[in-house]
Amino acid sequence: MFCRETSRPTGFVSFVGAGPGAADLITVRGLRALQLAEVVLFDELPGRELLAYCHPDAELVSVGKRAGNHSAAQAEINHLLITHARRGRRVVRLKGGDPTVFGRLGEELTALRDAGVRFEIVPGVTSACAAAAAAGISLTQRGVASTAILTTGHECAGKPEPAVDWSTLAQPGATLCVYMGTRALGSIAMRLVAEGLAADTPLLIVSHASRPTQTVRSGTLENAAALAAETEDTPSLILIGEAVAQNRAWLDDAAPALAHGTR
Amino acid sequence: MFCRETSRPTGFVSFVGAGPGAADLITVRGLRALQLAEVVLFDELPGRELLAYCHPDAELVSVGKRAGNHSAAQAEINHLLITHARRGRRVVRLKGGDPTVFGRLGEELTALRDAGVRFEIVPGVTSACAAAAAAGISLTQRGVASTAILTTGHECAGKPEPAVDWSTLAQPGATLCVYMGTRALGSIAMRLVAEGLAADTPLLIVSHASRPTQTVRSGTLENAAALAAETEDTPSLILIGEAVAQNRAWLDDAAPALAHGTR
Repeated sequence: MFCRETSRPTGFVSFVGAGPGAADLITVRGLRALQLAEVVLFDELPGRELLAYCHPDAELVSVGKRAGNHSAAQAEINHLLITHARRGRRVVRLKGGDPTVFGRLGEELTALRDAGVRFEIVPGVTSACAAAAAAGISLTQRGVASTAILTTGHECAGKPEPAVDWSTLAQPGATLCVYMGTRALGSIAMRLVAEGLAADTPLLIVSHASRPTQTVRSGTLENAAALAAETEDTPSLILIGEAVAQNRAWLDDAAPALAHGTR
Repeated sequence: MFCRETSRPTGFVSFVGAGPGAADLITVRGLRALQLAEVVLFDELPGRELLAYCHPDAELVSVGKRAGNHSAAQAEINHLLITHARRGRRVVRLKGGDPTVFGRLGEELTALRDAGVRFEIVPGVTSACAAAAAAGISLTQRGVASTAILTTGHECAGKPEPAVDWSTLAQPGATLCVYMGTRALGSIAMRLVAEGLAADTPLLIVSHASRPTQTVRSGTLENAAALAAETEDTPSLILIGEAVAQNRAWLDDAAPALAHGTR
């Protein structure tokens, strides 16, 4: 539907958001698309359990992008999407979280549009929302935070990424949600303080949100680097701002219990 | 799980994100919670079709907050949540989109924590993601937008809302997602231009995202007010920034076709 109609439109791809990790946090529509898929292209990280719901005859293709040669991998993914779609097969491209948020969706959409392959996007639960749910807080809160800012702490080596302008992200009335930020958190926290945020601004690091291995670490910008080191590079979402302290009394006392999940 | 354990913990509430409107854009976990609920407190706007999935004996309570006396309504909602939970009933509080994003969740969480009522949050698809999916674009895009900013154009009369600081939101490298902003869009657009965004910055207004009545209007900050007037106050999400032009060639030619939905 989303490409300009050509004289011979051909093929169809569903981009499906897998959600944050727990299999039952995919949408009903996303699950249905996955069950009907003849070909599923999936990334390595979240959503792997979801593959159990695919048809036994479905072709499951791992296209996980690791650090390193992103653009070659991307060209190959684009090629696979177009080739399978043109064969008339039901193609699902499964992406962690929501496809439109740090999902590198843009490159694949462009390739499909250029090739005249139609597509739909089935949205999903993005990690910031899953992290807030896991921590029992609201990203926006009346009188405290009127804005939630989703940004990335990860800068892809060798890519012309626009530098994140931390000066504009250091806003007292916002909740800052940093994707892929634990490695850089020490320097991010220092920059935010340099730009005017208080050193005791509350901060949460939510790892493996929604999974059985979920943990929530509670701290401030001041001890952020030490907290981040504890995560040992597990997939984590960082929440920063006054609003994230809503549940602090409980989190500080009982955070270890969160390792057993939200239910 | 999210309140401090007391000597007699009592009751349980599931906050469930209904997603953007289409019934099948709720999560599998959210749908299950709804099917098992004995009491469902729901708002007027999105998610109404979902009530068809509730148990026939479930008590369905509309607590829709309209413009006007918000705080009285909020106190009453808090009271209902606590009362039903303390009776040992399975309570679902259904909220449009994701509960943690402009869902006025904070007030209800505080009330439950104070009352010693346990809760969980089942995240959902927030409107910004649904709007991007509907328009066939990615909110973040390499080299174009490294940040997505979720903010509100609605200021609740008489409430001590912190003023949105539009100067910090006028960022060329971000996609600005404005919830509840169509009425104020004329003045928002003017402020963004005054703060340095180009007048021809692309803009989309996505109304009724994911529903059969979905429409996507494409324009720029310059003609934003006129576009917003066309929406006649239907629930809409506004997307602003260079990244939203990804699909422009198609949208400009074929936007009316979107009235027939995304599939």
